[in-house]
Amino acid sequence: MEWLDQIKWDADGLVPVIAQEQGSGDVLMFAWMNREAVARTAELGQAVYWSRSRRKLWHKGEESGHVQQVHSIRMDCDNDVLLLTITQHGHEPGIACHTGRHSCFFQRLDNGRWTSVEPVLKDPAHIYKS
Amino acid sequence: MEWLDQIKWDADGLVPVIAQEQGSGDVLMFAWMNREAVARTAELGQAVYWSRSRRKLWHKGEESGHVQQVHSIRMDCDNDVLLLTITQHGHEPGIACHTGRHSCFFQRLDNGRWTSVEPVLKDPAHIYKS
Repeated sequence: MEWLDQIKWDADGLVPVIAQEQGSGDVLMFAWMNREAVARTAELGQAVYWSRSRRKLWHKGEESGHVQQVHSIRMDCDNDVLLLTITQHGHEPGIACHTGRHSCFFQRLDNGRWTSVEPVLKDPAHIYKS
Repeated sequence: MEWLDQIKWDADGLVPVIAQEQGSGDVLMFAWMNREAVARTAELGQAVYWSRSRRKLWHKGEESGHVQQVHSIRMDCDNDVLLLTITQHGHEPGIACHTGRHSCFFQRLDNGRWTSVEPVLKDPAHIYKS
């Protein structure tokens, strides 16, 4: 598909992806997609990433139930970064982070130290069964 | 410095960085920093990126005047992505993109086509002199 061909994939065939929550505007996470992941995301209307550590497609929420409904897909001026606008399902408020927090960006630099500034909303032991 | 050591740099010694506008919450751009760029950003309170194409530090706004004042630096759960909260100076509304647009993410996927959905606020020929 032409729109997929217009994305500039990196040397590993991946593109960086930012997931931003609709409504709050909070940046919830950052991950990677390969061509198949982008195609699946557009088809499903749910975020499907490429897990670099597990080397396979990762339908976000497949284990946790915390799926991301995708409202829009944007691309930057260099055609090499994507920005998703999403609703984070499965918990209220949404939990995007595997640590049980709303956003993965919960560490803030304060006086030369990384400080955790977001609460754990749900114990990860209860998010991931088995 | 310890907080810099806690960042997980990639194989090229870089970390991906998302710049989000304070107030609007708009994601304005995505770029990379090496260790020196992150240190300079924290010192100056202005965004200093690493230009992968020019292979040098890139003090955002050094040519265009469109500097980014940094309010906070956050890090994700894997310690390998940074999120800056910024004010985009030099124009009202802020111009982060070299195309003269507010945000670099001005292309939206609509019915299988990338469509430009943000206006050019200033002609790039007038942003970059000579």
